[in-house]
Amino acid sequence: MAGELLSKFVNSFGAGLVSVSQTLGVTVSLVKTQVTQGVNAPGSRVAALVGLVGGGVHGTAALMVDAQGFASYVNAMSGGMIPPDLEDNVALSVVGELTNMVSGQTLMKLDIEGMDLTPPQIIAGENIKAVPPQKPGIVSFTLPFQVAPQGNIYLVVSLHG
Amino acid sequence: MAGELLSKFVNSFGAGLVSVSQTLGVTVSLVKTQVTQGVNAPGSRVAALVGLVGGGVHGTAALMVDAQGFASYVNAMSGGMIPPDLEDNVALSVVGELTNMVSGQTLMKLDIEGMDLTPPQIIAGENIKAVPPQKPGIVSFTLPFQVAPQGNIYLVVSLHG
Repeated sequence: MAGELLSKFVNSFGAGLVSVSQTLGVTVSLVKTQVTQGVNAPGSRVAALVGLVGGGVHGTAALMVDAQGFASYVNAMSGGMIPPDLEDNVALSVVGELTNMVSGQTLMKLDIEGMDLTPPQIIAGENIKAVPPQKPGIVSFTLPFQVAPQGNIYLVVSLHG
Repeated sequence: MAGELLSKFVNSFGAGLVSVSQTLGVTVSLVKTQVTQGVNAPGSRVAALVGLVGGGVHGTAALMVDAQGFASYVNAMSGGMIPPDLEDNVALSVVGELTNMVSGQTLMKLDIEGMDLTPPQIIAGENIKAVPPQKPGIVSFTLPFQVAPQGNIYLVVSLHG
């Protein structure tokens, strides 16, 4: 049951990321050979997480980007007006905004009554990793995307069964 | 309105952290002089976030610990059985479990009908920081606690007004 719901979430979020990125002028392509259960987002410098609650759902979705992926999105979304500085909160908030847009679109598509989401929480740092919960009943999945012109972005979805 | 709700959340979560820690054999004391609006959690190595949604609430609560605070909790909660290794997912999940316990107790105390929370999402890394959302209407607050025998733990609550 949790597995079925998870794959529905992962597919919808993945499609949302691709389509929102396209609108913003960033091309992302799924690296199919590296799709994985659990969490695997090497080299991440920024993570933006939203909580998904209600309608029987308890979970989180996170977008995690490396330094180059971060630069690609900040450049595209600010029209080159904001330098992609990993110490600058305004630049970092671009990843939160991206997550907002992707989640909003995904939420509409999933159309699960009663499900709502939290505002994105942004975490920045070096060598950051999301740690998969060590509990039975929580399932996680990572979709890795290559970003053009440069970098990587990872979509991590975790659901409580 | 958001300010009033925020202070209610911050107080309840803070009391929850103190009381749960006490139960686990860890003594924490609020560093009153460093209580701050916004986010300020220097030296953090692990963050565990829960989303708070429903009953008109949209927000997140995070516990962030430095290496020494992490060691204090892992030692106490595992009875010294688990080494406080920041690369070990089982040790890291202790912070998630702590967040679960604190959130659960706080949720019961707040008793807001319809409010629910996500399972904790754990992020580890070096020099990690939570980035306060750059949007009007989102308010954040940090309570810093000193941990005995050693270390620091920070409680960060963000609410959408």
